[in-house]
Amino acid sequence: MTLFGLDNLPYGVFSPAGGAPRVGVRLDDQVVDLSVLLDDPVFATGSLNAFMAQGRDRWAEVRERITELLSTDVPDAALHPLGDVRLHLPIEVADYVDFYASEHHASNLGRLFRPDSEPLTPNWKHLPVGYHGRAGTVVVSGTDVVRPCGQRKAPDEAAPTYGPSRRLDIEAELGFVVGAGSTLGSRIGVDEFADHVFGAVLLNDWSARDLQAWEYVPLGPHLGKSFATSISPWVVPLAALEAARVPLPGQDPEPLPYLREHDGWGLDIDLVVEWNGEEVSRPPYREMYWSPAQMLAHMTVNGASARTGDLFASGTISGPEKNQRGAFIELTWGGREPVTVKGEERTFLEDGDEVTISATAPGPRGGRIGFGEVTGRIRSTVTA
Amino acid sequence: MTLFGLDNLPYGVFSPAGGAPRVGVRLDDQVVDLSVLLDDPVFATGSLNAFMAQGRDRWAEVRERITELLSTDVPDAALHPLGDVRLHLPIEVADYVDFYASEHHASNLGRLFRPDSEPLTPNWKHLPVGYHGRAGTVVVSGTDVVRPCGQRKAPDEAAPTYGPSRRLDIEAELGFVVGAGSTLGSRIGVDEFADHVFGAVLLNDWSARDLQAWEYVPLGPHLGKSFATSISPWVVPLAALEAARVPLPGQDPEPLPYLREHDGWGLDIDLVVEWNGEEVSRPPYREMYWSPAQMLAHMTVNGASARTGDLFASGTISGPEKNQRGAFIELTWGGREPVTVKGEERTFLEDGDEVTISATAPGPRGGRIGFGEVTGRIRSTVTA
Repeated sequence: MTLFGLDNLPYGVFSPAGGAPRVGVRLDDQVVDLSVLLDDPVFATGSLNAFMAQGRDRWAEVRERITELLSTDVPDAALHPLGDVRLHLPIEVADYVDFYASEHHASNLGRLFRPDSEPLTPNWKHLPVGYHGRAGTVVVSGTDVVRPCGQRKAPDEAAPTYGPSRRLDIEAELGFVVGAGSTLGSRIGVDEFADHVFGAVLLNDWSARDLQAWEYVPLGPHLGKSFATSISPWVVPLAALEAARVPLPGQDPEPLPYLREHDGWGLDIDLVVEWNGEEVSRPPYREMYWSPAQMLAHMTVNGASARTGDLFASGTISGPEKNQRGAFIELTWGGREPVTVKGEERTFLEDGDEVTISATAPGPRGGRIGFGEVTGRIRSTVTA
Repeated sequence: MTLFGLDNLPYGVFSPAGGAPRVGVRLDDQVVDLSVLLDDPVFATGSLNAFMAQGRDRWAEVRERITELLSTDVPDAALHPLGDVRLHLPIEVADYVDFYASEHHASNLGRLFRPDSEPLTPNWKHLPVGYHGRAGTVVVSGTDVVRPCGQRKAPDEAAPTYGPSRRLDIEAELGFVVGAGSTLGSRIGVDEFADHVFGAVLLNDWSARDLQAWEYVPLGPHLGKSFATSISPWVVPLAALEAARVPLPGQDPEPLPYLREHDGWGLDIDLVVEWNGEEVSRPPYREMYWSPAQMLAHMTVNGASARTGDLFASGTISGPEKNQRGAFIELTWGGREPVTVKGEERTFLEDGDEVTISATAPGPRGGRIGFGEVTGRIRSTVTA
């Protein structure tokens, strides 16, 4: 059974051989050119932003129309085999915010980064902790990642040194794409999520743990993260995720009223992390503490506006089990407990390594839908 | 003597009555319409980005040509009295990074936020600490600032509460605008600053200290800053700041090689902070520890690309003297030492307050050049 049937129809931007980028939807192993199928210039552009900005009613209308047209004969001119097209970054990223919404991940990282303190900071269960990342270095799946250089200092070293990161890691995440923005000085209520969020992507927040550990106090991660963030080329529309909705695992203490959802929900999405083709982890999105709607409500509660193209991500998805951890620093416990990848003991990423994150979720009528994958290969540092 | 003569010529975006936004330069109290003066469509747009993307040689060529044309008769159609035009945000902000480059400010904040620790974190003198802010809420001078709501928890309170910030503050900063970007995976060397940076603006990084104090561990400031950042409408070109170059106050320990400038330089810029029209502080930019070129080199040393429109700011400019502090939390020592503003004792911002930051710098031939001002008024929270 296909993961990309009529119940899914994720949006992306592609170019056919010799053609300019345009918007399409994926159907099985084909890409449907919406600029041809719907004959609308909003789809004859290199990003989803113009379409997303048209708002929720229009998203519903277009989805219905596509479904209708794809149920009958599709003109050949609108169809391209997936293997024949080039996939691009689907959105122009406006602001990028990364949250930290998995209790298991935040506890693990707390133990690893601050072994002498409580694993969770006092604010963690009161608000979805998050920070801004670099929008300009969000890249599409398949883009090579150059090993970052920077300063790192181990606790037992007297002074920092400069060089290529020795603790290069991944973070398996889900990213949410804002389609319709909001006005400066207003806020997006916790029950207004679907009026603003267009869909979801898979996201790999590549992380240089040695750079991060040295730099992050007091203003948060910067160079340890800003060199690259990869996203999947297909944006799964929110409408395709209805059957994946599940209750949250539970929040204690009860959050402040602006974070209380009328109908709180998480998402039952199963991720798979492959390291050089070998499965090493299966992070379960359903275990996340904070909901996507709570993240968006928190992000705008101070009156910050949202814009078309804003991307906000969940933070690493880690479940309670070891084989559910979405970052290698957790999986190998800071590098002290190597994992076996293709017969070799491994801790952090080596040059030439490739990491692929994929995911599926329940679809309607007992089927499943796919997110496709986000993949990237590590290239060695280019020394000047 | 004018602060906006031919030695300055800052760029901005304006619309004359009934006209569309276009690019101009300020000359005395007039705005020169470059789309008319130079008859080039790159200036007939609503931001400086297209022109900035043309690169350093073109910036020099245009500056020379403008100077030449303005030294003779200027056609009436190209001139508008400053009071008759509307000034817009001059750039489309790509990514926004805020540094923390004043030793005096970082030490003061360390004492106030972490009274039981060393004021400076161990990394502070090894790298310019910085973090990403929200690009989408950068607004032009004159835009009202709505008092942000959010969570705050004083150390003696058992749980956080929600409401309008009670410790709303400013940060007087300088912002640098990237004109010509760089490629992902490459870096901008410390001596390549002028190939990339187009100019500088004044910046007010409005800060809700109560929100910030509760949220910022471990991932840095978020809601405490993201509600608004104001910049001045005029971008002073780097070429106008040659006479303002001064040596840095001194760096000890010597930074790692990638941060060592061939010809290290700061900027001798005098800022003035006015609170409801009364001068309360004169922050001196020449006291900054890290140079603008070091900030840019650090920001890209991990291979992060820079883009046209990237904005990176210095962090609060504070000098060694009390009346040189660029944030009210420092000036009033956490609110414990009020200052007198128009005969009233004041600590943090009240609704209706207006803050204006202005600045001047040495120009060539013994004159001075102006940055104009960045101003904003606090509006009360709109309760839902």
